[in-house]
Amino acid sequence: MLQPTDGGYTNGYHHDDADGGNRVRRGSRGRSRGRRGGGGGSDGGGGARVSQWQHEGEEREKPAPPCTDFDTAYFHSYAHVGIHEEMIKDRVRTESYRNAIFQHQNFIAGKVVVDVGCGTGILSIFCAQAGARRVYAVDASDIAVQANEIVKANNLSDKVIVLHGRVEDVEIDEEVDVIVSEWMGYMLLYESMLGSVITARDRWLKPGGLILPSHATLYMAPVTHPDRYSESVDFWRNVYGIDMSAIMPLAKQCAFEEPSVETITVENVLTWPQVVKHVDCYTVTIQELESITARFKFESMMRCTSSLFLPLSSNNIV
Amino acid sequence: MLQPTDGGYTNGYHHDDADGGNRVRRGSRGRSRGRRGGGGGSDGGGGARVSQWQHEGEEREKPAPPCTDFDTAYFHSYAHVGIHEEMIKDRVRTESYRNAIFQHQNFIAGKVVVDVGCGTGILSIFCAQAGARRVYAVDASDIAVQANEIVKANNLSDKVIVLHGRVEDVEIDEEVDVIVSEWMGYMLLYESMLGSVITARDRWLKPGGLILPSHATLYMAPVTHPDRYSESVDFWRNVYGIDMSAIMPLAKQCAFEEPSVETITVENVLTWPQVVKHVDCYTVTIQELESITARFKFESMMRCTSSLFLPLSSNNIV
Repeated sequence: MLQPTDGGYTNGYHHDDADGGNRVRRGSRGRSRGRRGGGGGSDGGGGARVSQWQHEGEEREKPAPPCTDFDTAYFHSYAHVGIHEEMIKDRVRTESYRNAIFQHQNFIAGKVVVDVGCGTGILSIFCAQAGARRVYAVDASDIAVQANEIVKANNLSDKVIVLHGRVEDVEIDEEVDVIVSEWMGYMLLYESMLGSVITARDRWLKPGGLILPSHATLYMAPVTHPDRYSESVDFWRNVYGIDMSAIMPLAKQCAFEEPSVETITVENVLTWPQVVKHVDCYTVTIQELESITARFKFESMMRCTSSLFLPLSSNNIV
Repeated sequence: MLQPTDGGYTNGYHHDDADGGNRVRRGSRGRSRGRRGGGGGSDGGGGARVSQWQHEGEEREKPAPPCTDFDTAYFHSYAHVGIHEEMIKDRVRTESYRNAIFQHQNFIAGKVVVDVGCGTGILSIFCAQAGARRVYAVDASDIAVQANEIVKANNLSDKVIVLHGRVEDVEIDEEVDVIVSEWMGYMLLYESMLGSVITARDRWLKPGGLILPSHATLYMAPVTHPDRYSESVDFWRNVYGIDMSAIMPLAKQCAFEEPSVETITVENVLTWPQVVKHVDCYTVTIQELESITARFKFESMMRCTSSLFLPLSSNNIV
């Protein structure tokens, strides 16, 4: 994806700024997501409802199991808490979903919803607050155990049913009116769960049902980032008085090897972005996502010493 | 190491502050160091001098090799640039070493030095600037190729000899007067290269020779960190109006599962630190480092809701 032009660079890894932690955590989030959707499958034992599953666990290990399923979830999925903390603290993201849910209250009130990759269950609870008759909150990761605890603590167990398993495996014995899912990853599709949303749609969504979000578009544009170039490449010109510029080609190379997630100013975007992929969640197929290619030609609106390609994505709630 | 007391927590992973990136990179640095010292061994082909090794490569692959050893180093070790950038940009660290080297100029001028795990070669060049007759800069990682380029670019090839290999494997045909090494990792010994320093000492150091640093001490003390507790644990009490406190036990658990590297204020250190391990680089053995245990008892000087154990280390240059 990255276009190795002279002097260009990008690399989240060795960039020291306030956003550095974010980038790394988001990458981790991407990894964790691989466990939820099409991959894995050992979690959840074929998609048991959390409450049933705990009950069976108690029967197997009575009278006082040394390590309950809840404990196992504790130990195996602890890393997820930070991921969920980060996602939820992204107010732009979370409030966009909440607003979309409440703006579509007419489609949700009294209806059946499935939340694909529910995480802590926050979107499921928003849907319950918007009047959903029933919400199936599905997640293959052990965070589902936490989601179930949260649902219980909020007295929503009659409305929100947490299913610990993959959408491919869990059973929902009715058609659903709405699918909600926060499936988007880096570059829109990076280790994303869109395949799971498609599966849920094809298994359960009523004709004419609602998918939130409904559309997404991946754009790409070349950008420049002179501050970072200076910090990670030019830096080597004078290191405590020593000329280390011999390392600069490698420093540039590093910059092109890894993707980087960061905020840049609009002045540093060199051309209008071009569409790489438009996704219509109502019609997209898993096959369509296996490989995505796009041809485009950019003409920079300015001269610069460093450039790289920046993917940008947007989603439309309906 | 971490003491799970009620309400205590620490975890570098999901903590969102300006230092987040640093922590992660330092962890990565730890990993990369595993390749330098006792581990690995495939790099450098038994410890060839970089210049010889490149020459042999040219002979094998003439007339125009599609991928030189230098290229291979590019592709395989790119991640190291960020690590070295970070280490070098730590002015406290780098200037401490530089000051120590120049303060011991009398021991270094006209003498033979070995730099264990030389990285970019910065300490080797400081030693050359301090008048060393010869510096053997040893590193098993591919960064040695970069170090050699830097040495050449600074016209120091007659003084600084870069050896690409492990100290266990490379050959130095003379005794050395001084060993310099920036071997310290997290918690002093985490994936550190101290074993390599010991090996270098036992192989080459003259009786009465100098080791920089000469001593190191690992301390430990319980600390509190209420801001972070609030940010990562209390946060779940009210998430967009939803009571998610059910997840708090897991959030605390997470905090204890992973070490965290961060700066805290002195007010949050609950007792005087106690010594866990004192290392005398002149006498320490590899066996002595295989397992370190210490008994200690703390009495907190204040009440707090959260606590964890903080290792602190100090090193003495002589």
